[in-house]
Amino acid sequence: MEIALARPKLISLAAGFTDSASLPVAEARALFDAILASPKTGQAALQYGTTAGDPVLRRLTAERLRAQDHAPRGSKLHAPERVIITSGSQQLLYMITEALCDPDDIVLVEDPTYFVYLGILQSHGIGARGVRMERDGLDLAHLETVLASLKRSGELKRVKLLYLVSYFQNPTGVTTSFAKKRATLRLLREYERAAGHPIYLVEDAAYRELRFTGEDVPSALTLPGAAERVIYGGTYSKPFATGVRVGFGLLPAAVHRVVMRLKGNHDFGTSNLLQQLLARALASGRYERHLEALRRRYAHKAAVTLRALEAHFPARAEWWTPRGGLYFWARLPHGVKSGVDSKLFRSALKHGVLYVPGVWCYAADPTRRKPDHELRLSFGGASEANLRAGIARFGDTLHELLDT
Amino acid sequence: MEIALARPKLISLAAGFTDSASLPVAEARALFDAILASPKTGQAALQYGTTAGDPVLRRLTAERLRAQDHAPRGSKLHAPERVIITSGSQQLLYMITEALCDPDDIVLVEDPTYFVYLGILQSHGIGARGVRMERDGLDLAHLETVLASLKRSGELKRVKLLYLVSYFQNPTGVTTSFAKKRATLRLLREYERAAGHPIYLVEDAAYRELRFTGEDVPSALTLPGAAERVIYGGTYSKPFATGVRVGFGLLPAAVHRVVMRLKGNHDFGTSNLLQQLLARALASGRYERHLEALRRRYAHKAAVTLRALEAHFPARAEWWTPRGGLYFWARLPHGVKSGVDSKLFRSALKHGVLYVPGVWCYAADPTRRKPDHELRLSFGGASEANLRAGIARFGDTLHELLDT
Repeated sequence: MEIALARPKLISLAAGFTDSASLPVAEARALFDAILASPKTGQAALQYGTTAGDPVLRRLTAERLRAQDHAPRGSKLHAPERVIITSGSQQLLYMITEALCDPDDIVLVEDPTYFVYLGILQSHGIGARGVRMERDGLDLAHLETVLASLKRSGELKRVKLLYLVSYFQNPTGVTTSFAKKRATLRLLREYERAAGHPIYLVEDAAYRELRFTGEDVPSALTLPGAAERVIYGGTYSKPFATGVRVGFGLLPAAVHRVVMRLKGNHDFGTSNLLQQLLARALASGRYERHLEALRRRYAHKAAVTLRALEAHFPARAEWWTPRGGLYFWARLPHGVKSGVDSKLFRSALKHGVLYVPGVWCYAADPTRRKPDHELRLSFGGASEANLRAGIARFGDTLHELLDT
Repeated sequence: MEIALARPKLISLAAGFTDSASLPVAEARALFDAILASPKTGQAALQYGTTAGDPVLRRLTAERLRAQDHAPRGSKLHAPERVIITSGSQQLLYMITEALCDPDDIVLVEDPTYFVYLGILQSHGIGARGVRMERDGLDLAHLETVLASLKRSGELKRVKLLYLVSYFQNPTGVTTSFAKKRATLRLLREYERAAGHPIYLVEDAAYRELRFTGEDVPSALTLPGAAERVIYGGTYSKPFATGVRVGFGLLPAAVHRVVMRLKGNHDFGTSNLLQQLLARALASGRYERHLEALRRRYAHKAAVTLRALEAHFPARAEWWTPRGGLYFWARLPHGVKSGVDSKLFRSALKHGVLYVPGVWCYAADPTRRKPDHELRLSFGGASEANLRAGIARFGDTLHELLDT
């Protein structure tokens, strides 16, 4: 991000920015206008809220999620009391990790995974083990191998949670199938006996609403045993406006209590005004209408990106085409390194293109080497023209490199 | 707060809410309207910002503080690069403590101090030592005694910072004199040699702008040696709108780097939209005009509170009259306990009045007993009528208790 800000002509396919042209400027204006039109609603929005979040937003969040999960009315897993509103889903991830893990603990992560989460782990001195990915989520056989090996080595008692970015994963774009969520939770519970404590399944659903093709998958909240073990995190920032930092979590009662205490210490509650903006956007239908338009927009940008990759990338490169979210994940032929010190990265930068090196997305797992020939391309922030131009330039760079 | 929310007829003199009727509803509406009138400024506000905060807000914050401190143009201590924007000043306090302290460390605090900060210390397993207060700030002789005793016991190496709420302190309303700030920093530096590391002076100036009488005191940033040792925290939430959570810190370069990393992990930046709201409020003069009105309003409410105390409190009770901020600090005759389990608290609650027991504001300092006959009364949230009625009822409760 620093490089991009310093060189405005650079085409950044790196940052997970959202599409500027599609931001809901008129919607936000109308919503604020309505909230601030009367002293009553205006004062309520400009005053402190409560630590857990605005009651209306908590209720709307729980109901929305219940509907997405096709859960019955009155579903206890989707009760408003289980909701906490946070400053983006990032803050939820931070607080959950702070609440559940001690230094030297181990977190299971997808291999690769969301690199900012790896930063959270690192800053707390928490270790990580990567579980290999398939096109429909975790490689279950590998998950079992990892758990069994941790059990053998006596390290299972340090494992507190598995972190899963379950929809259009950052960075791979992979969506975890429902069957795999079920099997994952079952495996974790099986190993709890040896661990001697709960092993939580943290489902980060940040990209869930950014689907542009196919059917939604129910969340892990609908699995048997989810009430005490599944932590669900979502966000309104990416689907609505990233400048509005409002995320949420649905937590088991015991975790909710601890995270509430942390939230009280962090900031005693996310901006009430922003929460009321979201509550009104949801209640008025503006959120949903905006989301529909956004999905079409991203579907189109993903298609533009795909066509550009097909036109400009060498045949020996591979990529995974996403059905939602903001990212393409690409693999270069082995031997073509993609890290910040690589020829490719420097050459791409010289051609004015920036990407996220795949190696950033791999945990420091002592049991394997980090792959270093992958990369993440974001189609969120760049304009269509820049997507085309950026990928063309990047393709040229790759051809040059492969030809020499 | 939970008690207050559950019993709407209760008069809460407890919560540090701000005055609802004075919240800048029309101002916020006009400001959002301007920001969101054009796609250009609207999109910029609804997109992600940077981790350190909006550059304009950082600059305006630094300039405003420089003017308040009567520092020369170009003052390095008031440089925009030293600013970080946070979700209220609370988040700054959290991150600074996280950055500088380890479990079992010791923080020096005013005795009494801001009780939410004590919660932060407790949640990190950090100890505290209280330094007695006088009407113009810390009792310097006691500070020296505490430091000397920590040195003797070999605990000085665990002392990382002194936390000072320097303007209209929460809970006592005391403002620290400039001479005391100077002497405090000098003492801390003197003991650094024995500590073997920096001991920071954290100046929490959350209430600085809520002055309604007398002259402002320059911040500790203007002291010799401040560049590497003083951490200054302020907020726009209390002076403007508590529903808008925007605070800030000015930090020594070494601390700034660490806190920036933490901020990236916590939430990678405070809501850009709220920051642009504040930047525009400051640049347009609306913030300053609102603040003037707010100061007059609080001055009036403080006067109402004082008259009610004089009329209804027993002669044997004492209180400190503040010159700014939101709180009166009262002392009951020894023997009249004020804690949540006390006769007084229960009786006040039965009469429909809530206050903050003084004991909450004392750190768990192993070297002294916590005083238990004090209380904090806030005049921020309650209406004038409720201030009068609440204090009258509370006075009756006290008279009953003292007469029996």
